[in-house]
Amino acid sequence: MQARGRLLGLGVGPGDPELITVKALRLLREAPVVAYFVAKGKRGNAFGIIEAHLQAEQTLLPLVYPVTTEALPAPLSYEQVISDFYDEASLQVAEHLDAGRDVAVICEGDPFFYGSYMYLHDRLASRYEAQVIPGVCSMLGGASVLGAPLVYRNQTLTVLSGVLPHEELKRRLADADAAVIMKLGRNFPKVRLVLAELGMDSRALYVERATMANQKIVALDEVDPQSSPYFSLIIVPGEKWQG
Amino acid sequence: MQARGRLLGLGVGPGDPELITVKALRLLREAPVVAYFVAKGKRGNAFGIIEAHLQAEQTLLPLVYPVTTEALPAPLSYEQVISDFYDEASLQVAEHLDAGRDVAVICEGDPFFYGSYMYLHDRLASRYEAQVIPGVCSMLGGASVLGAPLVYRNQTLTVLSGVLPHEELKRRLADADAAVIMKLGRNFPKVRLVLAELGMDSRALYVERATMANQKIVALDEVDPQSSPYFSLIIVPGEKWQG
Repeated sequence: MQARGRLLGLGVGPGDPELITVKALRLLREAPVVAYFVAKGKRGNAFGIIEAHLQAEQTLLPLVYPVTTEALPAPLSYEQVISDFYDEASLQVAEHLDAGRDVAVICEGDPFFYGSYMYLHDRLASRYEAQVIPGVCSMLGGASVLGAPLVYRNQTLTVLSGVLPHEELKRRLADADAAVIMKLGRNFPKVRLVLAELGMDSRALYVERATMANQKIVALDEVDPQSSPYFSLIIVPGEKWQG
Repeated sequence: MQARGRLLGLGVGPGDPELITVKALRLLREAPVVAYFVAKGKRGNAFGIIEAHLQAEQTLLPLVYPVTTEALPAPLSYEQVISDFYDEASLQVAEHLDAGRDVAVICEGDPFFYGSYMYLHDRLASRYEAQVIPGVCSMLGGASVLGAPLVYRNQTLTVLSGVLPHEELKRRLADADAAVIMKLGRNFPKVRLVLAELGMDSRALYVERATMANQKIVALDEVDPQSSPYFSLIIVPGEKWQG
């Protein structure tokens, strides 16, 4: 009987292609099939990060999101559409695994830190050998280019999605020693308002596409709320400890 | 006039030497001076991770902690002793920078995520060119070996130090979608008790020295509280989202 292939979730880091780990790079090069999530008509950030390392004999398996927004016209529900998509993507990956081919799923940042890979993992890891290679996540890429030490000693770090409602963001930020707010995009105005209400805006730092070639660092009060991309984040570093 | 050297904070990852990034490895190999924090009489985790890559012509600069505990006999205060130590370590590093030599400070995990490098950075980055290379932090190394997706969609992640008092741990954990508790060691019994009081113990996963050669994964209720090392962590993954 044919041995089954392995499912590999490879973190490829936040954007700078050199921020991939030696291990993810080795496993990527060895994998006969390279899968990646991508928006319709796009090349995909993860793909762009590793493209230079691909070899002609590797099979590419793009997993193309069927929608680009969570707001769908009735009777469509985002939850149902995306769930069906992950089911279908898992079948496509499983076909290669059943044929004995390892499938490397490349993941921007880290596979287990808000990554789409998690949905494949949850569907397949009980039936196939799965190995996850952690990566440098976007918030640490962001902290590094902002020159912002994130958490000192026994400070608490709170990582929030900008999608959360105003009141929940405010409650959680008010209680945070240090915070990272991800998934900004059109949530940016709400998040900036909450930070201002809490008097935290002067401590907050903003970066778009950290470590990528088109990275942009802008003062929080100078960000154009119309143009803040999804891949931007705000960091509120912990109060410095003299040490 | 001699050009000054650069201060480089290099994240070398959580333990597995292959989990260093391509960029940190390149900068490490190019650096004339390699500095690292280490406890008296120890080799140091960060040093062990990169030792195989060192070359004979590189100068090693171990920065040896003067104490191994925060509980010091009066009139000594930990804050004062450690602050003096970081001052002195900064002077040693600055000597090389002034002589035009780059100094690579190797950091287990990520330099800005609870790392001692932050204290050098805060003392030196205003006077010298400083570059920080982010690394895979221990919590993501832990999640990967535990096979535990950490946060789904808009879940909040709370990262806590086990040093925090019982009540604060309890309050913050009660409000967390997903949590990571670091710095366990002798704080382990307190943390396990808090998780039990909140009914979160069945969801919690425990790992010692994740991704290192002597990694150990143990069920939470089977951990010997006397032997839990400082480099252990507990992960409470976010509730799975079907997706």
